[in-house]
Amino acid sequence: MLDYATLFRPDLPPAAARWNGFPRFNFVGGHNDADCVPVEALIAAAAKVLKREGRSLATYGLDSGPLGYRPLREYIAGKLDRDAGIKCSADQVLITSGSLQGLDLVNALLVTPGDTVVVEQMTYGGALTRLKRAGANVVGVPLDGDGLSSAALETTLKDMKGRGIRPKFIYTIPTVQNPTATVMSEGRRREILALAENHGVPVFEDECYSDLVWGGARPQAMRGMTADDRVIHIGSFSKSIAPALRIGYLVADWTVMSRILAIKSDGGSGALEQMVLAEFCREHFDTHIVTLRKALRRKAEVLMEALTAQFGPVAAFDDPAGGIFLWVRLPDAVDTTRLTQVALESGVAVNPGAEWMTNTVAGQRRIRLCFAHPGEQVLRDGVARLAEVCRREFGVPVPDPKGHR
Amino acid sequence: MLDYATLFRPDLPPAAARWNGFPRFNFVGGHNDADCVPVEALIAAAAKVLKREGRSLATYGLDSGPLGYRPLREYIAGKLDRDAGIKCSADQVLITSGSLQGLDLVNALLVTPGDTVVVEQMTYGGALTRLKRAGANVVGVPLDGDGLSSAALETTLKDMKGRGIRPKFIYTIPTVQNPTATVMSEGRRREILALAENHGVPVFEDECYSDLVWGGARPQAMRGMTADDRVIHIGSFSKSIAPALRIGYLVADWTVMSRILAIKSDGGSGALEQMVLAEFCREHFDTHIVTLRKALRRKAEVLMEALTAQFGPVAAFDDPAGGIFLWVRLPDAVDTTRLTQVALESGVAVNPGAEWMTNTVAGQRRIRLCFAHPGEQVLRDGVARLAEVCRREFGVPVPDPKGHR
Repeated sequence: MLDYATLFRPDLPPAAARWNGFPRFNFVGGHNDADCVPVEALIAAAAKVLKREGRSLATYGLDSGPLGYRPLREYIAGKLDRDAGIKCSADQVLITSGSLQGLDLVNALLVTPGDTVVVEQMTYGGALTRLKRAGANVVGVPLDGDGLSSAALETTLKDMKGRGIRPKFIYTIPTVQNPTATVMSEGRRREILALAENHGVPVFEDECYSDLVWGGARPQAMRGMTADDRVIHIGSFSKSIAPALRIGYLVADWTVMSRILAIKSDGGSGALEQMVLAEFCREHFDTHIVTLRKALRRKAEVLMEALTAQFGPVAAFDDPAGGIFLWVRLPDAVDTTRLTQVALESGVAVNPGAEWMTNTVAGQRRIRLCFAHPGEQVLRDGVARLAEVCRREFGVPVPDPKGHR
Repeated sequence: MLDYATLFRPDLPPAAARWNGFPRFNFVGGHNDADCVPVEALIAAAAKVLKREGRSLATYGLDSGPLGYRPLREYIAGKLDRDAGIKCSADQVLITSGSLQGLDLVNALLVTPGDTVVVEQMTYGGALTRLKRAGANVVGVPLDGDGLSSAALETTLKDMKGRGIRPKFIYTIPTVQNPTATVMSEGRRREILALAENHGVPVFEDECYSDLVWGGARPQAMRGMTADDRVIHIGSFSKSIAPALRIGYLVADWTVMSRILAIKSDGGSGALEQMVLAEFCREHFDTHIVTLRKALRRKAEVLMEALTAQFGPVAAFDDPAGGIFLWVRLPDAVDTTRLTQVALESGVAVNPGAEWMTNTVAGQRRIRLCFAHPGEQVLRDGVARLAEVCRREFGVPVPDPKGHR
């Protein structure tokens, strides 16, 4: 037997745990609503595009080069113009394997161990994990109901400047912020941009949830508010169509793009996904997304009702502006890191707030609940189970004296 | 304007060049035969599997977890048992985005800057690029007609041991070696394995061309010759079905796999490719591959005939045992790095040998010609054009005094 322990890189993350299927009540993972996967239209799109262009599978990158399948890039450029106020050409769009690859590429482009990166104090756990693994000094800035606080950002940037620190970028999720589910106003976006410009810091704008604002309309993206390369923009079809497709995109000018392409060493993202999406989206995206938003809104309501019924005032949350998750505050008596562990033993998976906040102690009062995948009854039963576990472990929610809950 | 030059990581590779379409005579890139893409069967497979399981696209990893779509892993485990003499379970198979991701993952698992890695003196250029980028000290070992020389490997390993160096792994392409297109005998494989065992060094076995041995049968894989985790094995469907699908696989035990999974941060490989391949392969792989091998063999013959006709004895090469490329030696008068540049200006793309060898000076006498994608006439015309350029620049091949070439 080889002793691999002496061969592994010394800085590897801990070994993965074996996967044993999804838990029964699964409130984690960013999955989507299975009923809303447009299966028939995807089959038709696959048949049509493969019949027309299937032979091009014989070449790496189809006949579109390393940026990805050109018809999909053209669709995205058009969609960003219509929906996000971004003027860009297909040559400024890179297809990535999910927006996750966008995160990896931007980190690989800019972050050397010891570099400082500014993020929202509550933010996507996967972004935090990646930045820490890249050796970044991650600095969290508070949010308010309008997203990243410009006042707090200004203080942070000034303080850093005073200490001779220039952050590599400001990472923000303006539209359906993860985990708070707020939508940043256009005014706030301009304030953030102005601050970034003053301090010579790029903005890394993650708009992967932006198709899921309940009302449909989204504010202009920050990328659209500047004529130059100050904002690197990423988006995804994981939340709007299906996560397993692993198709996201990154928008940047050639200065940035030419360096990102040089480190994107994967021989291109999956061709079938790109071809099928391009074919599907041209005809069906706009109607599909309306249906999906309705279904998600309904599930958000079911989850909120269940939380109120089971936890009462003990669980505090804001009605989300869109998306697939709810950010819940529990009383100080509850340690959500521990709650997460014991709930999982009862088949209920939730994201502990500590993984979604730069201040992990404050995070121990929070949980994130994803609602897109479970059915309505599973949402209700799962919340009831969670309340039971929470009561047993932490004494809250207190049982209703009349026997109701 | 942001000055990105001051923000980029200092160790980035050079910026990518803009892509302007494929050159007219394209002998690079590992593309496949477009006529052999089984378009109709892929369409049928897509319809069938999506109708049955399309809803599962709503979950990351389908319902199969982070190793990849289980039916594809089961198919691969069965195929490796039948074709490569590897006994493994579906839980020892990880689906990767092409075998390229396998290279990236193994490097990320084992290589710290300054580490030594042993490779074949002539080997895949992309592996060399990746290892150098990872900071490895890359040591090339000579090959003979049977692939990696065990005698030379023994000398190298002993010499390293004497200097207190334990390489992180031995990277080898045993079946249809890239670029020499030889197939390593089972005897040689056992010798290499014994040496690796004696020196406590893992073997990283890249079998991505192993389905393309002309006769069909391939030797047992080294992974199949040991009961333990000494060999990490990778393979691919890029060469046997279509490169744009980006589906490869990695075989390892849990000690290694659990660490690789922890660094595979992409949220899974493309689901459509995995689903469609699993569905297609069960029914059609074995007949498809016979057709493909015949078509590739025919193209190899056309290329060899064209080289003989245009270059005569000036171009030396061995008849390949399979695969999609020919490894050609030109006279000392020819600098193939320069030839590559001027040929490209005439629309002929070839791989300069210097990119495929650890000894870049020796590589300047070699070129690699990929023959799977161009049509027969393009192969002939491209070789004629290449001969013209070579004659103009280096005086060889000498024109036939009778006016023939």
